[in-house]
Amino acid sequence: MTDSDPYHRETYPLLVVISGPSGVGKDAVRKRMQERGCPFHFVVTATDRPQRPGEVHGKDYYFVSTAEFERMLANDELLEHAMVYGQHKGVPKAHVRQALASGQDVLMRVDVQGAATIRRLVPDAVLIFLMPSSEEELIRRLQERRTEDPQALQMRIARAREELKCLPDFDYVVINRDNKLDETVDQIMAIITAEKCRVRPRKIEL
Amino acid sequence: MTDSDPYHRETYPLLVVISGPSGVGKDAVRKRMQERGCPFHFVVTATDRPQRPGEVHGKDYYFVSTAEFERMLANDELLEHAMVYGQHKGVPKAHVRQALASGQDVLMRVDVQGAATIRRLVPDAVLIFLMPSSEEELIRRLQERRTEDPQALQMRIARAREELKCLPDFDYVVINRDNKLDETVDQIMAIITAEKCRVRPRKIEL
Repeated sequence: MTDSDPYHRETYPLLVVISGPSGVGKDAVRKRMQERGCPFHFVVTATDRPQRPGEVHGKDYYFVSTAEFERMLANDELLEHAMVYGQHKGVPKAHVRQALASGQDVLMRVDVQGAATIRRLVPDAVLIFLMPSSEEELIRRLQERRTEDPQALQMRIARAREELKCLPDFDYVVINRDNKLDETVDQIMAIITAEKCRVRPRKIEL
Repeated sequence: MTDSDPYHRETYPLLVVISGPSGVGKDAVRKRMQERGCPFHFVVTATDRPQRPGEVHGKDYYFVSTAEFERMLANDELLEHAMVYGQHKGVPKAHVRQALASGQDVLMRVDVQGAATIRRLVPDAVLIFLMPSSEEELIRRLQERRTEDPQALQMRIARAREELKCLPDFDYVVINRDNKLDETVDQIMAIITAEKCRVRPRKIEL
Protein backbone atom coordinates (compact mmCIF):
# COMPACT_ATOMS: atom_id res chain seq x y z
CA MET A 1 0.00 0.00 0.00
CA THR A 2 1.59 3.25 -1.09
CA ASP A 3 0.21 6.77 -1.02
CA SER A 4 0.73 7.15 -4.72
CA ASP A 5 -1.39 4.16 -5.75
CA PRO A 6 -3.92 2.86 -3.23
CA TYR A 7 -4.92 0.11 -5.68
CA HIS A 8 -1.51 -1.52 -5.43
CA ARG A 9 -0.93 -3.77 -2.41
CA GLU A 10 2.31 -5.49 -1.50
CA THR A 11 1.86 -9.19 -0.75
CA TYR A 12 4.32 -11.67 0.69
CA PRO A 13 4.32 -15.47 0.79
CA LEU A 14 3.09 -16.98 4.03
CA LEU A 15 4.81 -19.46 6.31
CA VAL A 16 2.03 -21.68 7.65
CA VAL A 17 2.75 -24.07 10.49
CA ILE A 18 0.37 -26.96 11.19
CA SER A 19 0.91 -28.44 14.63
CA GLY A 20 -0.93 -30.18 17.43
CA PRO A 21 -0.53 -33.10 19.81
CA SER A 22 0.86 -36.42 18.68
CA GLY A 23 -1.99 -38.47 17.20
CA VAL A 24 -4.20 -35.54 16.18
CA GLY A 25 -3.69 -36.23 12.49
CA LYS A 26 -1.14 -33.68 11.25
CA ASP A 27 0.19 -36.01 8.57
CA ALA A 28 -3.30 -36.96 7.36
CA VAL A 29 -4.27 -33.29 7.04
CA ARG A 30 -1.08 -32.47 5.14
CA LYS A 31 -1.67 -35.44 2.84
CA ARG A 32 -5.28 -34.43 2.11
CA MET A 33 -4.12 -30.88 1.34
CA GLN A 34 -1.64 -32.26 -1.15
CA GLU A 35 -4.29 -34.52 -2.71
CA ARG A 36 -6.60 -31.54 -3.10
CA GLY A 37 -3.86 -29.54 -4.81
CA CYS A 38 -3.76 -26.78 -2.19
CA PRO A 39 -1.22 -24.28 -3.59
CA PHE A 40 1.65 -24.63 -1.12
CA HIS A 41 5.22 -25.65 -1.02
CA PHE A 42 4.94 -28.57 1.40
CA VAL A 43 8.07 -28.74 3.51
CA VAL A 44 9.45 -32.22 3.99
CA THR A 45 10.72 -32.85 7.51
CA ALA A 46 13.93 -34.74 8.12
CA THR A 47 13.82 -37.48 10.72
CA ASP A 48 15.91 -40.38 11.93
CA ARG A 49 12.88 -42.39 13.03
CA PRO A 50 12.18 -45.64 11.19
CA GLN A 51 10.12 -45.42 8.00
CA ARG A 52 6.54 -46.68 8.57
CA PRO A 53 4.79 -48.88 5.98
CA GLY A 54 3.47 -46.74 3.12
CA GLU A 55 5.66 -43.75 3.87
CA VAL A 56 7.72 -42.39 0.98
CA HIS A 57 11.22 -40.95 1.41
CA GLY A 58 11.39 -37.34 0.18
CA LYS A 59 7.61 -37.02 0.25
CA ASP A 60 6.43 -37.91 3.75
CA TYR A 61 9.82 -37.39 5.39
CA TYR A 62 13.48 -37.36 4.58
CA PHE A 63 14.52 -40.51 6.39
CA VAL A 64 18.11 -39.99 7.44
CA SER A 65 20.50 -41.74 9.78
CA THR A 66 21.08 -40.38 13.26
CA ALA A 67 24.64 -39.52 12.20
CA GLU A 68 23.39 -37.52 9.20
CA PHE A 69 20.81 -35.75 11.35
CA GLU A 70 23.49 -34.79 13.85
CA ARG A 71 25.64 -33.45 11.02
CA MET A 72 22.77 -31.18 9.85
CA LEU A 73 22.25 -30.03 13.42
CA ALA A 74 25.94 -29.23 13.87
CA ASN A 75 25.95 -27.23 10.58
CA ASP A 76 22.90 -25.19 11.69
CA GLU A 77 20.97 -26.42 8.65
CA LEU A 78 17.65 -26.84 10.50
CA LEU A 79 15.00 -24.20 11.12
CA GLU A 80 13.74 -26.12 14.11
CA HIS A 81 14.39 -29.55 15.44
CA ALA A 82 13.08 -31.66 18.27
CA MET A 83 13.78 -34.90 19.98
CA VAL A 84 10.44 -36.70 20.30
CA TYR A 85 10.26 -40.13 21.88
CA GLY A 86 13.99 -40.45 21.40
CA GLN A 87 13.76 -39.64 17.68
CA HIS A 88 14.95 -36.52 15.87
CA LYS A 89 12.77 -34.40 13.62
CA GLY A 90 13.76 -31.16 11.95
CA VAL A 91 12.92 -28.76 9.14
CA PRO A 92 15.73 -28.01 6.65
CA LYS A 93 16.13 -24.22 6.43
CA ALA A 94 17.26 -24.17 2.80
CA HIS A 95 13.98 -25.62 1.49
CA VAL A 96 11.88 -23.04 3.31
CA ARG A 97 14.04 -20.13 2.15
CA GLN A 98 14.03 -21.29 -1.48
CA ALA A 99 10.25 -21.69 -1.57
CA LEU A 100 9.60 -18.31 0.05
CA ALA A 101 12.07 -16.65 -2.30
CA SER A 102 10.16 -18.07 -5.27
CA GLY A 103 6.99 -16.44 -3.91
CA GLN A 104 5.31 -19.67 -2.82
CA ASP A 105 3.38 -20.01 0.42
CA VAL A 106 5.11 -22.61 2.56
CA LEU A 107 3.32 -25.15 4.71
CA MET A 108 5.05 -27.27 7.32
CA ARG A 109 3.79 -29.57 10.00
CA VAL A 110 5.82 -29.68 13.15
CA ASP A 111 5.41 -30.89 16.69
CA VAL A 112 4.15 -28.48 19.32
CA GLN A 113 7.69 -27.93 20.58
CA GLY A 114 8.84 -27.10 17.06
CA ALA A 115 6.02 -24.61 16.63
CA ALA A 116 7.20 -22.77 19.75
CA THR A 117 10.69 -22.52 18.23
CA ILE A 118 9.28 -21.20 14.94
CA ARG A 119 7.18 -18.63 16.80
CA ARG A 120 10.40 -17.35 18.38
CA LEU A 121 12.48 -17.35 15.19
CA VAL A 122 9.74 -16.27 12.76
CA PRO A 123 7.17 -14.19 14.66
CA ASP A 124 5.09 -13.60 11.51
CA ALA A 125 4.51 -17.30 10.81
CA VAL A 126 0.84 -18.37 10.87
CA LEU A 127 0.54 -20.97 13.61
CA ILE A 128 -2.40 -23.36 13.42
CA PHE A 129 -3.09 -25.79 16.25
CA LEU A 130 -4.91 -28.95 15.24
CA MET A 131 -7.12 -30.07 18.10
CA PRO A 132 -8.76 -33.44 18.60
CA SER A 133 -12.49 -33.21 19.24
CA SER A 134 -12.09 -34.95 22.60
CA GLU A 135 -9.50 -36.78 24.66
CA GLU A 136 -11.31 -40.06 24.02
CA GLU A 137 -10.90 -39.49 20.29
CA LEU A 138 -7.20 -38.73 20.67
CA ILE A 139 -6.61 -41.86 22.74
CA ARG A 140 -8.49 -43.96 20.20
CA ARG A 141 -6.25 -42.62 17.42
CA LEU A 142 -3.07 -43.21 19.40
CA GLN A 143 -4.21 -46.78 20.06
CA GLU A 144 -5.09 -47.44 16.43
CA ARG A 145 -1.94 -45.97 15.02
CA ARG A 146 0.47 -48.64 16.04
CA THR A 147 0.79 -51.55 18.35
CA GLU A 148 2.64 -50.39 21.36
CA ASP A 149 2.78 -51.34 24.99
CA PRO A 150 0.38 -49.74 27.47
CA GLN A 151 3.19 -47.83 29.15
CA ALA A 152 4.20 -46.06 25.91
CA LEU A 153 0.55 -45.21 25.27
CA GLN A 154 0.23 -43.66 28.72
CA MET A 155 3.35 -41.61 28.01
CA ARG A 156 1.85 -40.31 24.77
CA ILE A 157 -1.44 -39.41 26.47
CA ALA A 158 0.39 -37.52 29.21
CA ARG A 159 2.46 -35.75 26.59
CA ALA A 160 -0.64 -34.76 24.58
CA ARG A 161 -2.11 -33.21 27.75
CA GLU A 162 1.04 -31.14 28.16
CA GLU A 163 0.99 -30.13 24.50
CA LEU A 164 -2.59 -28.85 24.75
CA LYS A 165 -1.32 -26.27 27.23
CA CYS A 166 0.68 -24.64 24.41
CA LEU A 167 -2.50 -23.63 22.57
CA PRO A 168 -2.27 -19.96 23.71
CA ASP A 169 1.00 -19.60 21.73
CA PHE A 170 -0.86 -20.26 18.46
CA ASP A 171 -2.86 -17.96 16.18
CA TYR A 172 -5.64 -20.35 15.20
CA VAL A 173 -7.17 -23.57 16.44
CA VAL A 174 -8.91 -26.01 14.10
CA ILE A 175 -10.72 -29.07 15.42
CA ASN A 176 -9.78 -32.13 13.38
CA ARG A 177 -12.94 -34.20 13.74
CA ASP A 178 -13.01 -37.90 13.09
CA ASN A 179 -13.79 -38.56 9.39
CA LYS A 180 -14.09 -34.83 8.68
CA LEU A 181 -10.68 -34.29 7.13
CA ASP A 182 -12.10 -32.11 4.36
CA GLU A 183 -13.76 -29.80 6.89
CA THR A 184 -10.40 -29.40 8.59
CA VAL A 185 -8.72 -28.58 5.27
CA ASP A 186 -11.54 -26.15 4.38
CA GLN A 187 -10.98 -24.29 7.63
CA ILE A 188 -7.24 -24.13 7.10
CA MET A 189 -7.77 -22.79 3.57
CA ALA A 190 -10.22 -20.18 4.93
CA ILE A 191 -7.54 -19.07 7.38
CA ILE A 192 -5.06 -18.68 4.51
CA THR A 193 -7.60 -16.69 2.47
CA ALA A 194 -8.26 -14.41 5.43
CA GLU A 195 -4.54 -13.93 6.07
CA LYS A 196 -4.14 -12.83 2.46
CA CYS A 197 -6.88 -10.24 3.00
CA ARG A 198 -5.16 -8.69 6.03
CA VAL A 199 -4.63 -4.96 5.68
CA ARG A 200 -1.33 -5.38 7.54
CA PRO A 201 0.17 -8.42 5.83
CA ARG A 202 2.67 -10.63 7.61
CA LYS A 203 6.17 -10.51 6.20
CA ILE A 204 8.48 -13.44 6.81
CA GLU A 205 12.12 -12.68 7.58
CA LEU A 206 14.17 -15.82 7.57
CA MET B 1 -10.43 -22.04 27.21
CA THR B 2 -10.06 -23.11 30.85
CA ASP B 3 -7.29 -25.04 32.50
CA SER B 4 -9.71 -27.69 33.68
CA ASP B 5 -11.02 -28.57 30.19
CA PRO B 6 -8.81 -27.69 27.23
CA TYR B 7 -11.49 -29.11 24.90
CA HIS B 8 -13.96 -26.42 25.86
CA ARG B 9 -13.57 -23.05 24.12
CA GLU B 10 -15.59 -19.94 24.81
CA THR B 11 -16.97 -18.35 21.66
CA TYR B 12 -18.67 -15.01 21.20
CA PRO B 13 -20.77 -13.61 18.37
CA LEU B 14 -18.90 -11.36 15.96
CA LEU B 15 -19.69 -7.83 14.88
CA VAL B 16 -18.70 -7.64 11.22
CA VAL B 17 -18.57 -4.27 9.49
CA ILE B 18 -18.58 -4.09 5.69
CA SER B 19 -17.44 -0.71 4.44
CA GLY B 20 -15.71 0.92 1.52
CA PRO B 21 -16.03 3.95 -0.75
CA SER B 22 -19.35 5.06 -2.15
CA GLY B 23 -20.06 3.04 -5.30
CA VAL B 24 -17.92 0.01 -4.41
CA GLY B 25 -20.99 -2.22 -4.04
CA LYS B 26 -21.61 -2.56 -0.29
CA ASP B 27 -25.36 -2.99 -0.77
CA ALA B 28 -24.92 -5.54 -3.57
CA VAL B 29 -22.55 -7.62 -1.40
CA ARG B 30 -24.91 -7.50 1.55
CA LYS B 31 -27.82 -8.51 -0.68
CA ARG B 32 -25.91 -11.46 -2.18
CA MET B 33 -24.97 -12.62 1.33
CA GLN B 34 -28.63 -12.57 2.29
CA GLU B 35 -29.60 -14.45 -0.88
CA ARG B 36 -27.00 -17.10 -0.10
CA GLY B 37 -28.34 -17.51 3.40
CA CYS B 38 -25.12 -16.48 5.14
CA PRO B 39 -25.87 -16.93 8.86
CA PHE B 40 -25.89 -13.35 10.11
CA HIS B 41 -28.21 -10.89 11.65
CA PHE B 42 -28.15 -8.21 8.94
CA VAL B 43 -28.45 -4.80 10.54
CA VAL B 44 -30.81 -2.44 8.78
CA THR B 45 -29.51 1.12 8.62
CA ALA B 46 -31.81 4.07 9.21
CA THR B 47 -31.62 6.92 6.71
CA ASP B 48 -33.53 10.01 5.74
CA ARG B 49 -32.46 9.81 2.11
CA PRO B 50 -35.15 9.18 -0.49
CA GLN B 51 -36.07 5.55 -1.19
CA ARG B 52 -34.63 4.38 -4.55
CA PRO B 53 -36.72 2.25 -6.93
CA GLY B 54 -36.68 -1.39 -5.79
CA GLU B 55 -35.58 -0.65 -2.23
CA VAL B 56 -37.73 -2.10 0.53
CA HIS B 57 -38.37 -0.27 3.83
CA GLY B 58 -37.20 -2.36 6.80
CA LYS B 59 -35.08 -4.58 4.56
CA ASP B 60 -32.73 -2.32 2.60
CA TYR B 61 -33.04 0.62 4.96
CA TYR B 62 -35.39 2.10 7.49
CA PHE B 63 -36.52 5.14 5.57
CA VAL B 64 -37.35 7.79 8.14
CA SER B 65 -38.02 11.51 8.02
CA THR B 66 -35.27 13.93 8.90
CA ALA B 67 -37.25 14.89 12.04
CA GLU B 68 -37.44 11.22 13.15
CA PHE B 69 -33.73 10.74 12.47
CA GLU B 70 -32.89 13.78 14.57
CA ARG B 71 -35.06 12.44 17.39
CA MET B 72 -33.09 9.13 17.36
CA LEU B 73 -29.85 11.09 17.36
CA ALA B 74 -30.94 13.26 20.29
CA ASN B 75 -31.96 10.12 22.25
CA ASP B 76 -28.56 8.47 21.62
CA GLU B 77 -30.25 5.53 19.90
CA LEU B 78 -27.62 5.19 17.16
CA LEU B 79 -24.38 3.22 17.30
CA GLU B 80 -22.89 5.41 14.60
CA HIS B 81 -24.31 7.99 12.28
CA ALA B 82 -23.01 10.06 9.45
CA MET B 83 -24.11 12.88 7.23
CA VAL B 84 -23.23 11.82 3.68
CA TYR B 85 -24.06 14.09 0.75
CA GLY B 86 -26.46 15.98 3.02
CA GLN B 87 -28.29 12.80 4.03
CA HIS B 88 -28.30 11.05 7.39
CA LYS B 89 -27.46 7.38 7.87
CA GLY B 90 -27.21 5.58 11.19
CA VAL B 91 -27.24 2.16 12.84
CA PRO B 92 -29.84 1.64 15.60
CA LYS B 93 -28.03 0.37 18.71
CA ALA B 94 -30.92 -1.70 20.01
CA HIS B 95 -30.95 -4.04 17.00
CA VAL B 96 -27.25 -4.78 17.28
CA ARG B 97 -27.44 -5.42 21.03
CA GLN B 98 -30.44 -7.72 20.69
CA ALA B 99 -28.83 -9.81 17.95
CA LEU B 100 -25.52 -10.16 19.80
CA ALA B 101 -27.35 -11.08 23.01
CA SER B 102 -29.13 -13.89 21.14
CA GLY B 103 -25.72 -15.23 20.08
CA GLN B 104 -26.00 -14.26 16.40
CA ASP B 105 -23.14 -12.82 14.42
CA VAL B 106 -24.08 -9.35 13.31
CA LEU B 107 -23.23 -7.87 9.92
CA MET B 108 -23.60 -4.23 9.09
CA ARG B 109 -22.56 -2.12 6.15
CA VAL B 110 -21.58 1.43 6.92
CA ASP B 111 -19.76 4.25 5.20
CA VAL B 112 -16.05 4.64 5.79
CA GLN B 113 -16.68 7.41 8.33
CA GLY B 114 -19.09 5.15 10.21
CA ALA B 115 -16.54 2.35 10.29
CA ALA B 116 -14.06 4.70 11.96
CA THR B 117 -16.63 5.47 14.65
CA ILE B 118 -17.31 1.77 15.22
CA ARG B 119 -13.58 1.05 15.49
CA ARG B 120 -13.44 3.62 18.30
CA LEU B 121 -16.56 2.42 20.12
CA VAL B 122 -16.15 -1.33 19.50
CA PRO B 123 -12.44 -2.11 19.09
CA ASP B 124 -13.13 -5.84 18.66
CA ALA B 125 -15.39 -5.40 15.63
CA VAL B 126 -14.13 -7.08 12.44
CA LEU B 127 -13.66 -4.28 9.90
CA ILE B 128 -13.67 -5.27 6.23
CA PHE B 129 -12.86 -2.70 3.54
CA LEU B 130 -14.42 -3.39 0.15
CA MET B 131 -12.09 -2.13 -2.53
CA PRO B 132 -12.85 -1.51 -6.20
CA SER B 133 -10.43 -3.24 -8.55
CA SER B 134 -9.45 0.12 -10.07
CA GLU B 135 -10.47 3.75 -10.05
CA GLU B 136 -11.84 3.42 -13.58
CA GLU B 137 -14.13 0.64 -12.34
CA LEU B 138 -15.32 2.78 -9.41
CA ILE B 139 -16.05 5.75 -11.66
CA ARG B 140 -17.97 3.52 -14.05
CA ARG B 141 -20.13 2.24 -11.20
CA LEU B 142 -20.77 5.72 -9.87
CA GLN B 143 -21.80 6.85 -13.35
CA GLU B 144 -24.10 3.86 -13.89
CA ARG B 145 -25.76 4.06 -10.55
CA ARG B 146 -27.83 7.14 -11.13
CA THR B 147 -28.16 10.07 -13.42
CA GLU B 148 -26.47 12.96 -11.79
CA ASP B 149 -24.74 16.08 -12.93
CA PRO B 150 -20.98 15.99 -13.68
CA GLN B 151 -20.21 18.20 -10.67
CA ALA B 152 -21.84 15.74 -8.23
CA LEU B 153 -19.91 12.89 -9.87
CA GLN B 154 -16.62 14.74 -9.44
CA MET B 155 -17.48 15.26 -5.77
CA ARG B 156 -18.08 11.53 -5.31
CA ILE B 157 -14.83 10.62 -7.04
CA ALA B 158 -12.89 13.03 -4.85
CA ARG B 159 -14.64 11.63 -1.78
CA ALA B 160 -13.79 8.03 -2.77
CA ARG B 161 -10.12 9.02 -3.04
CA GLU B 162 -10.25 10.39 0.48
CA GLU B 163 -12.03 7.27 1.74
CA LEU B 164 -9.34 4.98 0.34
CA LYS B 165 -6.89 6.67 2.70
CA CYS B 166 -8.79 5.12 5.64
CA LEU B 167 -7.82 1.58 4.60
CA PRO B 168 -5.11 1.27 7.31
CA ASP B 169 -7.83 1.53 10.00
CA PHE B 170 -9.39 -1.72 8.79
CA ASP B 171 -8.57 -5.37 9.54
CA TYR B 172 -9.18 -6.84 6.10
CA VAL B 173 -9.44 -5.67 2.51
CA VAL B 174 -11.48 -7.54 -0.08
CA ILE B 175 -11.45 -6.52 -3.73
CA ASN B 176 -15.00 -6.45 -5.08
CA ARG B 177 -14.37 -7.23 -8.75
CA ASP B 178 -16.89 -6.47 -11.44
CA ASN B 179 -19.26 -9.43 -11.90
CA LYS B 180 -17.44 -11.43 -9.21
CA LEU B 181 -19.85 -10.84 -6.33
CA ASP B 182 -19.70 -14.48 -5.23
CA GLU B 183 -15.90 -14.36 -4.98
CA THR B 184 -16.26 -11.31 -2.75
CA VAL B 185 -18.79 -13.11 -0.56
CA ASP B 186 -16.58 -16.24 -0.45
CA GLN B 187 -13.68 -14.15 0.82
CA ILE B 188 -15.82 -12.46 3.46
CA MET B 189 -17.08 -15.86 4.63
CA ALA B 190 -13.48 -17.16 4.77
CA ILE B 191 -12.58 -14.20 6.97
CA ILE B 192 -15.48 -15.06 9.31
CA THR B 193 -14.40 -18.72 9.44
CA ALA B 194 -10.83 -17.68 10.27
CA GLU B 195 -12.01 -15.25 12.94
CA LYS B 196 -13.94 -18.09 14.57
CA CYS B 197 -10.73 -20.16 14.64
CA ARG B 198 -8.74 -17.47 16.45
CA VAL B 199 -7.12 -18.73 19.61
CA ARG B 200 -7.80 -15.33 21.17
CA PRO B 201 -11.40 -14.69 20.13
CA ARG B 202 -12.76 -11.16 19.87
CA LYS B 203 -15.35 -10.26 22.45
CA ILE B 204 -17.78 -7.47 21.66
CA GLU B 205 -18.66 -5.11 24.50
CA LEU B 206 -21.50 -2.83 23.52
